[in-house]
Amino acid sequence: MTATLVREDLHAQIESRVRSVFDDRIARAAPYGDEYVGLWRASAEQVLGGKLLRPRLLVAMHDALLDQDTADEASATRDAVVEIAAAVEILHYAFLLHDDVIDGDAQRRGKPNLIGALRDARSDLGTTSAQHWAVTGAILMGDLLLSVVHQMFARAELDHATRLRLLDLLDHTITETVAGEHADVALSDGAIAPDLKTILTMTAHKTATYTFEFPLRVAAMLAGAAPLTEDALAAIGQHLGVAFQLQDDALSVFGDAGEHGKEPYADLREGKETVLIAYARLTSAWSSIEPRFGDSSLSADDGALISDQLRQCGADSFVQHLIDEQLAAARTGISDETAPLPAAARETLMALLDRIQGRLS
Amino acid sequence: MTATLVREDLHAQIESRVRSVFDDRIARAAPYGDEYVGLWRASAEQVLGGKLLRPRLLVAMHDALLDQDTADEASATRDAVVEIAAAVEILHYAFLLHDDVIDGDAQRRGKPNLIGALRDARSDLGTTSAQHWAVTGAILMGDLLLSVVHQMFARAELDHATRLRLLDLLDHTITETVAGEHADVALSDGAIAPDLKTILTMTAHKTATYTFEFPLRVAAMLAGAAPLTEDALAAIGQHLGVAFQLQDDALSVFGDAGEHGKEPYADLREGKETVLIAYARLTSAWSSIEPRFGDSSLSADDGALISDQLRQCGADSFVQHLIDEQLAAARTGISDETAPLPAAARETLMALLDRIQGRLS
Repeated sequence: MTATLVREDLHAQIESRVRSVFDDRIARAAPYGDEYVGLWRASAEQVLGGKLLRPRLLVAMHDALLDQDTADEASATRDAVVEIAAAVEILHYAFLLHDDVIDGDAQRRGKPNLIGALRDARSDLGTTSAQHWAVTGAILMGDLLLSVVHQMFARAELDHATRLRLLDLLDHTITETVAGEHADVALSDGAIAPDLKTILTMTAHKTATYTFEFPLRVAAMLAGAAPLTEDALAAIGQHLGVAFQLQDDALSVFGDAGEHGKEPYADLREGKETVLIAYARLTSAWSSIEPRFGDSSLSADDGALISDQLRQCGADSFVQHLIDEQLAAARTGISDETAPLPAAARETLMALLDRIQGRLS
Repeated sequence: MTATLVREDLHAQIESRVRSVFDDRIARAAPYGDEYVGLWRASAEQVLGGKLLRPRLLVAMHDALLDQDTADEASATRDAVVEIAAAVEILHYAFLLHDDVIDGDAQRRGKPNLIGALRDARSDLGTTSAQHWAVTGAILMGDLLLSVVHQMFARAELDHATRLRLLDLLDHTITETVAGEHADVALSDGAIAPDLKTILTMTAHKTATYTFEFPLRVAAMLAGAAPLTEDALAAIGQHLGVAFQLQDDALSVFGDAGEHGKEPYADLREGKETVLIAYARLTSAWSSIEPRFGDSSLSADDGALISDQLRQCGADSFVQHLIDEQLAAARTGISDETAPLPAAARETLMALLDRIQGRLS
């Protein structure tokens, strides 16, 4: 099999496992009536809209580590690896659901998100009730999926010691990701000061931990890799993750909405305290940006204007510099000859780094 | 030891376990800054405000079943029973948090709830931001606690087969409770028709299942009771639970807010479709109730007026009749000589039934 075939096969395997989780849940919702089934169906239609970045990284790294001569015997079957990978993708979707509730977003990946879909499907209820109904659906589905993820981890066909290590990691990951989300909202609502260090830490907690460190650590645990290998992967994952989120922030302001799929200038409208904004606050441009920043009725033209102002004051170059720094640190970690990483793992990480570097969406 | 001493001892044991879970989480929040610690502390101050109805029922029934000659050997240590009981109370609190977010309530048990407390603590942010900050805290804390509950179940010191049965039950309970909550909101938002049967089913799912059936089934599992015993307890628990929730609905409209601790007439203000309202809709009184029902700015005087109108049209007697019917069915189940229930279990249930019957808050 060629590498491309293997990748497509993996994508299909993960998708199939996620789909079967939702099919099972839809069947179990049936006794509770059409609305509950409808909620599960609407989520099932959305959960597979992404690139499966996290679960694919998990399985790819697991396979790469199995090549390692020094690895202990793998503690997981292939089915268990795909099962946990599917759970990691469902966790990502659960985070997105509550993130969208908190941010008041109704769009994701260029289409209505669950809130948008539920609201549009019941416009007969009137604007206020339809919105409440939709937001309620997103809150409850987030809860249900958080529960599903824990069930998948708690039942994984692994020895109990490995299962407990995975549960520890899941606990740490949720604690840290929610801390990051909480800090993000603290910044937007003005509950803490928007300095650069706080924003970078928030970025690491909110995105890097669950997007890169988590799947890499899980892969190491399931492959029976040494603790030092796991820690090396985690450190590289943090750098890649911060770069990834900084790119997201830059794309939201400078990118093509047709590519990134979110509502154009949503971050500016919501008053998100990103490194772009923290930098701009230090420049003379801020006095002309500030009046429109965080205006929930910001027009596309105003968004484009702020975008230009941010570029002119150097925020664009500044964030690009930070991204380059994080990627360079990741590259150093990947190439470090003293790190206990097998060649296949280094290749997997370098390919990921290259994809992040060239990313447009 | 007298029975009162045993009860006080049990209350203290559960409280102490819940408190130590929160203490541990507060310590683990410290690296993420003062705001995250503050969120955990604010929740810790609130979680123990209730009567511990659910965990106390669980432990009391567990102990009652252990007296049974025919019971298999108990599969759980005392510590494991208290651990799961504490998790059941934390699950209750997590449900309340998201319920309050969905209903827009800022008060519970006669005091500001978590939303109210977080909002009041940061009034310096201005009304809109303080409210957003507070609601975000409640959403995220609900997520964190849902995760904590699953961790406690997944790690319980039990044989793996019992742990899997408990996880199945937790899964079923969350699925059904969320279905009930979803139906409740569907009724309020007008997404489904408010007929009596729908409302009674919603009541059973939303409250009876997790408040009574769940702790009783858990008790049976942990005591190693026979499946028929577990099923008999579950059926009785459903009747008690529906009676309990119908009382809640009646107390919200006819009760003394000083006793029940919620915002006076909150159900009327939120347009909750209770059996009281479903009954009133069938009477000539509805045309004079309808204009004020669901008015978010309903005054206390208007609330008192609707309360009188509901009493006069017979909604009060009607719901009392339904409560009596459910309690009678529970009593029949408890007394059923063919049911495989030990005498101590029957006594525990009958004492619970008597407490529910005389309840004012």
